[in-house]
Amino acid sequence: MTHFPHSNGMEKQIKIPEATIDRIALYYRILEDLLAQGVQVISSQKFASVCRINPAQVRKDLSFFGEFGVRGVGYNVRDLLMEIKKILVSDREWKLGIVGLGNMGKALVRDENFFRRGYRFVAAFDSDPAKIGQEVVKDLFIRSMAEISLATDQLRIEIGVITTPPLHAQRVADLLMDAGIMAILNFSAIQVRKPDCCLVHNVDFTVNLDNLAYHLKKRS
Amino acid sequence: MTHFPHSNGMEKQIKIPEATIDRIALYYRILEDLLAQGVQVISSQKFASVCRINPAQVRKDLSFFGEFGVRGVGYNVRDLLMEIKKILVSDREWKLGIVGLGNMGKALVRDENFFRRGYRFVAAFDSDPAKIGQEVVKDLFIRSMAEISLATDQLRIEIGVITTPPLHAQRVADLLMDAGIMAILNFSAIQVRKPDCCLVHNVDFTVNLDNLAYHLKKRS
Repeated sequence: MTHFPHSNGMEKQIKIPEATIDRIALYYRILEDLLAQGVQVISSQKFASVCRINPAQVRKDLSFFGEFGVRGVGYNVRDLLMEIKKILVSDREWKLGIVGLGNMGKALVRDENFFRRGYRFVAAFDSDPAKIGQEVVKDLFIRSMAEISLATDQLRIEIGVITTPPLHAQRVADLLMDAGIMAILNFSAIQVRKPDCCLVHNVDFTVNLDNLAYHLKKRS
Repeated sequence: MTHFPHSNGMEKQIKIPEATIDRIALYYRILEDLLAQGVQVISSQKFASVCRINPAQVRKDLSFFGEFGVRGVGYNVRDLLMEIKKILVSDREWKLGIVGLGNMGKALVRDENFFRRGYRFVAAFDSDPAKIGQEVVKDLFIRSMAEISLATDQLRIEIGVITTPPLHAQRVADLLMDAGIMAILNFSAIQVRKPDCCLVHNVDFTVNLDNLAYHLKKRS
């Protein structure tokens, strides 16, 4: 159940900024780490510092979802974790289909972090005939691109992951969206065109490098 | 040269939020795409919409660096691109050292996007004796972990990239920081501990998936 203290129905929900949702996901992971380290209470200053986000921003992000923390004391780590879990984390598994089983694709399907977070690769597709039929990870066999539509339907794929070379990414995105997939995580280094109804997130590691380089440059 | 209209020296620089720097890097990539598509002028509303960020946020982000755009007209794409380039992009190459040449590591060193953005992998390290000496990409031979310190010095590695299993990430981060590397991009799914002087960015794709899943859940 999603908890919206500011909202009393489906029609008039507060629009929560994309960046807030991303940060909430980050807070969740950091709270898990803190709990694993035995931290029970953390001041809002210290929590913000661990997250590398300014305290006002942390408070603002959390305020979209309700009142958290106790003034002068801080956050109860377990309580805040549970609250964020209600907001963010699904109590069910999400089914992923991945297209492009090169090094990046293989790295992703073999990364246990996805499964741990509730994301399961149920189908893998590649255009290379030599790869089709290969078992890329236990019980996950590579399928041809021609199977995208049928497999999406049969396996109820909800999120598509694109790990093809940039040149093929748009065509693959079109195939996924034609098959009825509404959300795509795109690792190819191009922005794909999409209708407004679909969600596409582009992952570009060089954005993170630009941030590091910016700070290194400022220091030197 | 970094352009800081609000600042007149090294001592008293405005603290620019991390998220702003990440978004500026995103704006840069989107402006490049727009220019490649032949777009010369774009309204601030339209630009914000392409970026999937609210217009007030875009204006606020850009305001840290100066006055951009013309009221009622919008941004000149080429001019804004050039201004951001001055702020963000270095006129030199950054040297990367990567540790862990599994699928993820190989995918990164073979990804031409890094080189295109001014990031070059000058050294690759792995703990597997069977991999040492392998040429993972032209002229990049895998070295043993014992060489991290010397290679960092000789090759002037500036940014470390960790693509090891989570279990080894902390030890690897310590080795990199001991060798004098001040900035790390960490792809292992754990937060690494670090002294305040070092910068570590953690990349976790499941944060992007949480965002997509959050929106899919809200719709259903």
